[in-house]
Amino acid sequence: MRKTTIGFLGCGNVGGGVFALLEGTAGQIAHRDGIEFVLKRALVRDINKARSVPIPARLLTDRPEDVLDDPQIDIVLEFLGGEQPAIDFMLRALRNGKTVVTANKVALALGWHLLQAEAQKYGGGLYYEASVCGAIPVIRALTDSLQANRIDAVMGIINGTTNYILTRMAKEGKDYAQVLFDAQRLGLAEPDPSADVDGYDAAYKLSILASLAFHAHVPVGRIYREGIGSISARDIAYGKEMGLTLKLLAVAKRNNSVVEVRVHPTFVPNEHPLASVSGAFNAVFLKGHAFGEMMFYGQGAGDAPTASAVVSDLIMAAAAPRHWHPTFANQEQASPELGFDTNWASVYFIRLSASDKPGVLSAITGCFGAHEVSIASMVQHSGIDNDRVPLVFVTHRAHEQSVMQALKDMKPEDATVESVIRVEGR
Amino acid sequence: MRKTTIGFLGCGNVGGGVFALLEGTAGQIAHRDGIEFVLKRALVRDINKARSVPIPARLLTDRPEDVLDDPQIDIVLEFLGGEQPAIDFMLRALRNGKTVVTANKVALALGWHLLQAEAQKYGGGLYYEASVCGAIPVIRALTDSLQANRIDAVMGIINGTTNYILTRMAKEGKDYAQVLFDAQRLGLAEPDPSADVDGYDAAYKLSILASLAFHAHVPVGRIYREGIGSISARDIAYGKEMGLTLKLLAVAKRNNSVVEVRVHPTFVPNEHPLASVSGAFNAVFLKGHAFGEMMFYGQGAGDAPTASAVVSDLIMAAAAPRHWHPTFANQEQASPELGFDTNWASVYFIRLSASDKPGVLSAITGCFGAHEVSIASMVQHSGIDNDRVPLVFVTHRAHEQSVMQALKDMKPEDATVESVIRVEGR
Repeated sequence: MRKTTIGFLGCGNVGGGVFALLEGTAGQIAHRDGIEFVLKRALVRDINKARSVPIPARLLTDRPEDVLDDPQIDIVLEFLGGEQPAIDFMLRALRNGKTVVTANKVALALGWHLLQAEAQKYGGGLYYEASVCGAIPVIRALTDSLQANRIDAVMGIINGTTNYILTRMAKEGKDYAQVLFDAQRLGLAEPDPSADVDGYDAAYKLSILASLAFHAHVPVGRIYREGIGSISARDIAYGKEMGLTLKLLAVAKRNNSVVEVRVHPTFVPNEHPLASVSGAFNAVFLKGHAFGEMMFYGQGAGDAPTASAVVSDLIMAAAAPRHWHPTFANQEQASPELGFDTNWASVYFIRLSASDKPGVLSAITGCFGAHEVSIASMVQHSGIDNDRVPLVFVTHRAHEQSVMQALKDMKPEDATVESVIRVEGR
Repeated sequence: MRKTTIGFLGCGNVGGGVFALLEGTAGQIAHRDGIEFVLKRALVRDINKARSVPIPARLLTDRPEDVLDDPQIDIVLEFLGGEQPAIDFMLRALRNGKTVVTANKVALALGWHLLQAEAQKYGGGLYYEASVCGAIPVIRALTDSLQANRIDAVMGIINGTTNYILTRMAKEGKDYAQVLFDAQRLGLAEPDPSADVDGYDAAYKLSILASLAFHAHVPVGRIYREGIGSISARDIAYGKEMGLTLKLLAVAKRNNSVVEVRVHPTFVPNEHPLASVSGAFNAVFLKGHAFGEMMFYGQGAGDAPTASAVVSDLIMAAAAPRHWHPTFANQEQASPELGFDTNWASVYFIRLSASDKPGVLSAITGCFGAHEVSIASMVQHSGIDNDRVPLVFVTHRAHEQSVMQALKDMKPEDATVESVIRVEGR
């Protein structure tokens, strides 16, 4: 039996979940892996605060150095969340030769280059399965299972809050604001929901996934980002009639050294595996040149699922004779060999409010035609508001800028654009 | 750069796929893992046969000892399929201190205890990701990612041929024999389809998955097995009306030390993630005490997907300073601590052909009631054949033996049993 001494940075929900899971599976881990984990100290903000997990009070400390600088601690587990002080604390632990396991997507996405450099310099490991999609082993799949593939596409439902909101909007026909309010009331959305609903959370995770998939650094700042705030119940209903389900999708595609990376509301066909991922569940769909299509589905958040990934990393870290690091140039900026395509090709769902007069439809389709945007289907929905009728177009594959230019060319007296939603997975 | 010399046992479709994938990704593997794989010999039945993959003729041999006994060969990759000579060849390679990577579910399921014993005795590794579900990294997930969980259930669509047949039956309303014939014509089912359609293939894979999930040996002989041969288009259609999709499901559940393991046609609710796994795709759905619910979806067969898993194992094997083996008592029989429950509880879909006379329905429901099988819904379908009407019952959760006894008690003049299909995933 080998004893591995660990320290926690943070002991809230996730830390408590890890403590409980380690307690509950100690016998199994000892038997299977021959390792005994001993928690020496846990850094908390307030050592007197009541905790739901029965962690002994003597293990709590409010002094970072008790964890970061204790030479007996082999592995530091970071649950602080956010950029700072998480990055600085992890750097200090790594400089002390420790291995770090983190569940922190923000700190990893923003500080990966710094963290990896110190890990490599001082011989420690850096493990982050829990930073993306909770228990779902998508990081391990990319690094250890699908490594003989060229990954061509990653498409993920990687934010549970937005998927919960969109699922309820679709089921109940309610508007965004109504469902968001309800989600906040139930504790499923934050009082300030921006990180989730504006796509920031998904962009951090996509930065990590795309970097590993493409063996090149894809910074979060290069990811196009659009939230779900302007989605209406009407878009979801019209899409449903056309066999489409709305998701906040994180998309990364690669064509040789050119990539496109984007987070935005996206329709997927009902028969696509991503369409049936509902509620707070997450899923990551991958395309690779050898494995073809693959999808990982599971709980992307929550204390116990996150703890499952953290403890898995911890066992891996403790058992590894040496630590693996990505071989791409891990730097703050994008890897120099990467080109970023913002004029991607997609299918577009476009809802217009059009004037109900002769010649208008011809003018509208003329704008599309002038920019080589070809229409796959058009539905004129019933109901007129102030002489305006709702028109929904679905295009064939077209380029982003062509579509935007075509819409710009439309005369306001003919039609105004109500929504533009990309369609993937056909 | 470290050179690892490898040998193939077999060089048909899978071996050819591995050869091609290794050729195509040699640069990537060298860069990322610092390993160069050199194929020294490939055992084939006929060295003069034309091959689709441009493997140099000088590497081919028809003498097993050229691969098994060559001290320069570090890792042997086995693609022979079937029980023998695959098991004996792998044992010989292991006794020579080599590591073995196999894609062979039959040999692993039947010879695992022998293979693991020799691997542990002589210090070699035994890797088998490709033996179950092709490219899908479900073996690695169980051993390396979800190891801090108690796995409570495994439910898998792990045979592509039967899923293809059932998907087409559902889409086209055709009968089993018709679709099977078509699948055989297209090369998607074997001339002798028994291994697939009778559930043997799924049972071998379930034996491997359940053993890893439950940390105890679940021999294939203890798995209840029922094929899809007696499924009618009518069952699928009636199920569809009730929101159910038919799959050949491999089910393993655990309750403390008691397990139930079974392969049979199964209805799953349309909203369950397994329901939308169509065509030749595979999926494995897991329940664990920490991660909750998880599903892995992908191509479970095919040369390139299988090669993806083999090469992943190969890299893992070459990089590992020591090899991991399951810690359960790996023996031919079931692990002694396991109990096997064959009187499992499930929901049942039961189709009867009933006499259209007063009192018959009361007699039928009386039989269910007498065995404490409670009915959740009943549909009498239109149409009468020879004074008989089709009746479909769906039960609440009931025990297998109670249901079977209730059906036995029905008088043939009242009703005959047309089909009994278990329902999982509610």
